[in-house]
Amino acid sequence: MPISSVNKSILTPVEFLTRSAFVYPDKTAVVHGEKRYTYGEFAERVYRLANALIEKGVGKGDKVAFLCPNIPPMLEAHYAVPMIGAALVSVNIRLAPVEVSYIIDHSDAKFVVVDSEFASLIESDKLPKVKDFVTVCDINDTKILEGMEYEEFLAASSPDRPVLNIDSEDQLLSINYTSGTTGRPKGVMYHHRGAYLNAIGEVLESGLTTSSVYLWTLPMFHCNGWCFTWGVTAVGATHVCLRAVVADDIYRLIDQEEVSHLCAAPTVLIMMSTWPKASEVKMKGTLNIMTAGAPPAPTIIRNMEAIGAEITHTYGLTEVYGPHSVCAWQPGWEKLSEDEKATAKSRQGVPFITTHYMDVVDPETMEPVARDGVAIGEIVMRGNNVMTGYYKDPEATKSAFSGGWFHSGDLAVMHDDGYVEIMDRKKDIIISGGENISTVEVENVIYRHPDVLEVAVVPVPDSKWGEVPKAFIVPKEGTDPSPEEIINHTREHLARFKAPKYIEFGELPKTATGKIQKFKLREKEWEGKKRIN
Amino acid sequence: MPISSVNKSILTPVEFLTRSAFVYPDKTAVVHGEKRYTYGEFAERVYRLANALIEKGVGKGDKVAFLCPNIPPMLEAHYAVPMIGAALVSVNIRLAPVEVSYIIDHSDAKFVVVDSEFASLIESDKLPKVKDFVTVCDINDTKILEGMEYEEFLAASSPDRPVLNIDSEDQLLSINYTSGTTGRPKGVMYHHRGAYLNAIGEVLESGLTTSSVYLWTLPMFHCNGWCFTWGVTAVGATHVCLRAVVADDIYRLIDQEEVSHLCAAPTVLIMMSTWPKASEVKMKGTLNIMTAGAPPAPTIIRNMEAIGAEITHTYGLTEVYGPHSVCAWQPGWEKLSEDEKATAKSRQGVPFITTHYMDVVDPETMEPVARDGVAIGEIVMRGNNVMTGYYKDPEATKSAFSGGWFHSGDLAVMHDDGYVEIMDRKKDIIISGGENISTVEVENVIYRHPDVLEVAVVPVPDSKWGEVPKAFIVPKEGTDPSPEEIINHTREHLARFKAPKYIEFGELPKTATGKIQKFKLREKEWEGKKRIN
Repeated sequence: MPISSVNKSILTPVEFLTRSAFVYPDKTAVVHGEKRYTYGEFAERVYRLANALIEKGVGKGDKVAFLCPNIPPMLEAHYAVPMIGAALVSVNIRLAPVEVSYIIDHSDAKFVVVDSEFASLIESDKLPKVKDFVTVCDINDTKILEGMEYEEFLAASSPDRPVLNIDSEDQLLSINYTSGTTGRPKGVMYHHRGAYLNAIGEVLESGLTTSSVYLWTLPMFHCNGWCFTWGVTAVGATHVCLRAVVADDIYRLIDQEEVSHLCAAPTVLIMMSTWPKASEVKMKGTLNIMTAGAPPAPTIIRNMEAIGAEITHTYGLTEVYGPHSVCAWQPGWEKLSEDEKATAKSRQGVPFITTHYMDVVDPETMEPVARDGVAIGEIVMRGNNVMTGYYKDPEATKSAFSGGWFHSGDLAVMHDDGYVEIMDRKKDIIISGGENISTVEVENVIYRHPDVLEVAVVPVPDSKWGEVPKAFIVPKEGTDPSPEEIINHTREHLARFKAPKYIEFGELPKTATGKIQKFKLREKEWEGKKRIN
Repeated sequence: MPISSVNKSILTPVEFLTRSAFVYPDKTAVVHGEKRYTYGEFAERVYRLANALIEKGVGKGDKVAFLCPNIPPMLEAHYAVPMIGAALVSVNIRLAPVEVSYIIDHSDAKFVVVDSEFASLIESDKLPKVKDFVTVCDINDTKILEGMEYEEFLAASSPDRPVLNIDSEDQLLSINYTSGTTGRPKGVMYHHRGAYLNAIGEVLESGLTTSSVYLWTLPMFHCNGWCFTWGVTAVGATHVCLRAVVADDIYRLIDQEEVSHLCAAPTVLIMMSTWPKASEVKMKGTLNIMTAGAPPAPTIIRNMEAIGAEITHTYGLTEVYGPHSVCAWQPGWEKLSEDEKATAKSRQGVPFITTHYMDVVDPETMEPVARDGVAIGEIVMRGNNVMTGYYKDPEATKSAFSGGWFHSGDLAVMHDDGYVEIMDRKKDIIISGGENISTVEVENVIYRHPDVLEVAVVPVPDSKWGEVPKAFIVPKEGTDPSPEEIINHTREHLARFKAPKYIEFGELPKTATGKIQKFKLREKEWEGKKRIN
């Protein structure tokens, strides 16, 4: 069908830009350093990119890879590529060359756009399917790869809006490779309908409006920026680009551009809350922060709120287009103590208005667990925002969809108020002497110790108990806590068997998106030993 | 398909209630006088109604008619009826018995729920298709009709959630009969997908959030309350019921329940702004008013804003689920003078985020008119919120959909900023000596005269000019303006030929929903004469 008939139109996030360019042609759409594009200019750049790709032979069903930080070309890609019927493959800039090559090749991308800073990650001789490279010279003029420069590429093509090459809501829109803590990355496929609905879902939960200013602390290559790449445009708000997550820049832009919204992993919030000048920060208005990726420790929530931020905690995965649930505020919570409030807010919560279907089940029987905050099961999801499947991997898709639900691999309890709380990744839960220990629960307690900056708890082998908890801790600068102090602190708040038996101080291994890689810590401890769990 | 599979779920507004009952079981959902229902209780009442209807043999494809003012049973109907696969027919309580009978019979309703105050409108002997009547005794115990009382009907059935009988987004959800200024009312068919998207569209444009309190000044029988029956529930906000539109009650409830949002036709705004104690009103917060139904005169917008209301002007028709366009605020408008601002805000504007497709075209060629604010064409729409068609009237549907767009019958210009401004209903435009005169433009000027409460301008026959404008005016209480004063006032602001040649003072005929019936004034003037236009 065409994009719209008299009483049906295809749900596609591409049309958000069409509308905002029509309604707000002179409003600021994109800010990047000194550059400012209005919605009219933003749309024109998108149309130029779309036409330039068409001229290069890119069309329906093709894949276009982008390897860029959060700069305007990334936003442009989110409209120009799907507009012409192609699919966008956003590649994580923190990966190694071999991983980048694997993703570009596996995705069958025939066209690659790369920021010059990351051009060295491209092993062009190992990418036989790629026909053309274009380099974005955002911070320097070094064009390492053969092919055109991005601005020249745009300038050479027509500014007219191309005919949309979208004829179904289920058409492939993008492929997002999961950073994958183990094994090869898998390509998660999104479609137009899912992205449209999820973008609106994000707008509803974050409270974005036309007058909002959104700072790009979250990588756009991560679940298409949780669909905010489309949601911010939907309401005609302003995108503020950010090449690198640096606290100085974040605070400068918040002040200068009057940022009202940002999304960030808890590690970014830790960085923001421990910035030396954080205590001097004076927000002009409320800064609405949506966080996800790992349960934020209550302490971090409190610290950020102290400097004028409002934290909304969400939870999701790449396979569900980013966030799926939100720790929705309840009337009555304002009466809780600060600690109780932070604890309530650190839970993963309830489904979005637009996502709706989520449960905690016994993964074998698919029966929901008791709503008692104790029984542990797996979080499963269903609905329009569950991926179409893994690209070229029907086996993995089938396994992820077993029982008619998407299996998150996250273990959680369901509280009596219907709120989900993650206990652990399936592989992270500790079974010690037959008792389950949630490493997240232990970490949350350790975070409350004044000398702790970051902590990760993993199981280590124990001849008596099978396995016991061990804590890896990054102390705050200028502090020197002892293992005993930490263990005693933990015992004050938790059952004795949950306290770590071992403590190690030092740096923590992290993924490219800033998630702590517990599996690396765990593997080191279990080397040569077989873990049954 | 079932309501949801692993990666697809049916878009239906019924699921908004499922989610809010899950997420906010203890939050106030519905207020009606002394009664307060939480979302848990609201859902239970809905499930009881659904089960009771099932027990009466109502199921997939059946029609259920409700003839009630804005009371809780009306809200319950919006979930219980579609939940079991039936379609809701909300009948206008201001119609005559013969019209009510026509609608109930034409809709094939087999079940009727009526509020006791309006039971006398039901001619049960003329409704052979209706199997059962249920009477709501909200303000008295007089049960005129045979059959059960509503609360007994609910009490006798199960409170368990029935299985949803919805297997397609395009399934019939409701039939809304247009009040129809001429001819028989036509039954406008809505489906689940359209209502879901339009409800979200209303939330986005009105800024409703979980903490909002919505007052039901707009009849729920009018386009299903512009889909706010579903939108308010979607975000878990509070519905405040209102049996009758009385200024004292409106202001009392705004104060008592801390109302944040309401929708109203301009006639209601006139009533509110001319309420004797309006000048003493102190709003606790901003009162967000969405208005539509007729272009509000700039003076009315100014008056309401003076007492602390924020007016959003929208435009639509029953055939597009209520509002389709909004006069979106532009950065820079804050610099306009109060008069310029009010004029800018009285335009019909641009499409909603979710409606998107609207144009002003030459209805013969379907070519868009020039974006110059001068060329007049017909407003046409397209998209998910255009009706499925007129019930049992394929001819009228075909005619309304000619050229692949829905024809609104409204004549408008498109300004150079893309904003649509209605000039007139097709039949209302005056062609005087070959010049087009917009009656709305003339009315807006007359509204600025300090002695004018309401005005309607229509064409009357003229031997020289073919037709000329005549103004029917309701003066403000205690004033006694002369025809000359009004004509001179108009000439100060408009071309001479646009000023009314005749003035008549007195009451204005109105439809049941409060729209001025210009056609009645026009018909009287043209009796026995043929109008070519």
